[in-house]
Amino acid sequence: MDLHAFAHTVFAEQAFSRFIGARLESVGPGTAAIAIDIVPHLLQQHGFVHGGVLSYLADNSITFAGGLAMQGNALTSEFKINYVRPAKGVRIIARATADSVGRRQAVCRCEIVVVREDGEEALCALAQGTVVAAADPT
Amino acid sequence: MDLHAFAHTVFAEQAFSRFIGARLESVGPGTAAIAIDIVPHLLQQHGFVHGGVLSYLADNSITFAGGLAMQGNALTSEFKINYVRPAKGVRIIARATADSVGRRQAVCRCEIVVVREDGEEALCALAQGTVVAAADPT
Amino acid sequence: MDLHAFAHTVFAEQAFSRFIGARLESVGPGTAAIAIDIVPHLLQQHGFVHGGVLSYLADNSITFAGGLAMQGNALTSEFKINYVRPAKGVRIIARATADSVGRRQAVCRCEIVVVREDGEEALCALAQGTVVAAADPT
Amino acid sequence: MDLHAFAHTVFAEQAFSRFIGARLESVGPGTAAIAIDIVPHLLQQHGFVHGGVLSYLADNSITFAGGLAMQGNALTSEFKINYVRPAKGVRIIARATADSVGRRQAVCRCEIVVVREDGEEALCALAQGTVVAAADPT
Repeated sequence: MDLHAFAHTVFAEQAFSRFIGARLESVGPGTAAIAIDIVPHLLQQHGFVHGGVLSYLADNSITFAGGLAMQGNALTSEFKINYVRPAKGVRIIARATADSVGRRQAVCRCEIVVVREDGEEALCALAQGTVVAAADPT
Repeated sequence: MDLHAFAHTVFAEQAFSRFIGARLESVGPGTAAIAIDIVPHLLQQHGFVHGGVLSYLADNSITFAGGLAMQGNALTSEFKINYVRPAKGVRIIARATADSVGRRQAVCRCEIVVVREDGEEALCALAQGTVVAAADPT
Repeated sequence: MDLHAFAHTVFAEQAFSRFIGARLESVGPGTAAIAIDIVPHLLQQHGFVHGGVLSYLADNSITFAGGLAMQGNALTSEFKINYVRPAKGVRIIARATADSVGRRQAVCRCEIVVVREDGEEALCALAQGTVVAAADPT
Repeated sequence: MDLHAFAHTVFAEQAFSRFIGARLESVGPGTAAIAIDIVPHLLQQHGFVHGGVLSYLADNSITFAGGLAMQGNALTSEFKINYVRPAKGVRIIARATADSVGRRQAVCRCEIVVVREDGEEALCALAQGTVVAAADPT
């Protein structure tokens, strides 16, 4: 199975990703982008996208970037996220890259941007985390 | 307004917390517990609760613990989470505590447990983060 | 070799720990405390202990707590630290605990306090990190 | 005072940076590089540079990148570091960049490389942290 098909198959099996409305936008060898349209049920009390949505995007884009880099099933074992701007706009995109890749572990970084109505992007969070290779679930 | 009422009012205004099915279980001066029943749409591809659900719980319980410690509106500005065990069971509970409280900032730690069918709890994640006081939105 | 002797042997082999003046104060199964007297060459430009000294203490006490929990050689693979108060006093003590222990990995948390002239302790940093078991170097 | 002179003046006042043998290699508006020659007293028990040296470099290069971005005194309030390769060679260089800059806070990322005998660089750690503007100490 090619990487693209593999990643989309795994993503489609993530019930929570479907529930939250996320899309796997693009994948490469060691990169992944996940997007989500901003809808009212993703907001917090001040009308911005809830931090939990951004942390989901960081977690999941990091998992896919690391898994694609190691070419197999993978899990995020830890990550940290800094929120740098309230997320207000039409869409959020998280782009992750595996910046250090070993046989069993990858360290990935992620930038999360909000896309405004005019199409302009603004950085709203930065994340960094560890992805570990998982045994094949079969 | 007392702390308990304040926290529940804010929580009720979080559309994403309602959407994801979270409950503010308990609050105190510098503590907060948020729970969520494990239902199929919260799972990932291996049948465990998605890491993004756990990171939401870490983010939000830390926000409330810090906000209650500083007695006002607050935002999580950053956090890190370590996943230590796949979450499988009937319910997840995140318990956060403000371990260092200043006038404008609190550093909080959070333990996330999964509750099994027999009621036993098992640790599934540990988090630590910073909460900053926010201007009153009124 | 018992845990106590093992830990002290490893610590004595750390040239940097000797150079910086650190002492392994106490060890247990999954705990370690490292102390350092505050001397002028450990300070930064405002007269407080440099953050790098505190991050060394976090890193190393976490390594020892994790290694003692897993009963073998270990390395810190990642950690995060929050500085919560400028460190001014006579001594710094970092106390780490392995809060989740597997066969190959432990997640540890650490509290760093400064001891004032009157013997009182004040929290100055909180840390959390991952320790991985290392192959025996023999 | 220009940024370059300001940064070098502050660096020269850091007793710990002198003690550990660090050099401020280069600075820019929102960037800083700090280097340290690998000498025996910086090593740990396996002959690699101690993680505490790398965490010092992360902490300090992040502080300078953030302070230079905000053009004033600054402190690192928190950071996380992932160690990705044992550091063995002749020199360590930490390069930090302020990737998000506000009036009172900057979020910076840092890459730490080891320089081998043949001059080749290899990544040995990645870090991310928050720098907060500090009141002028005068």
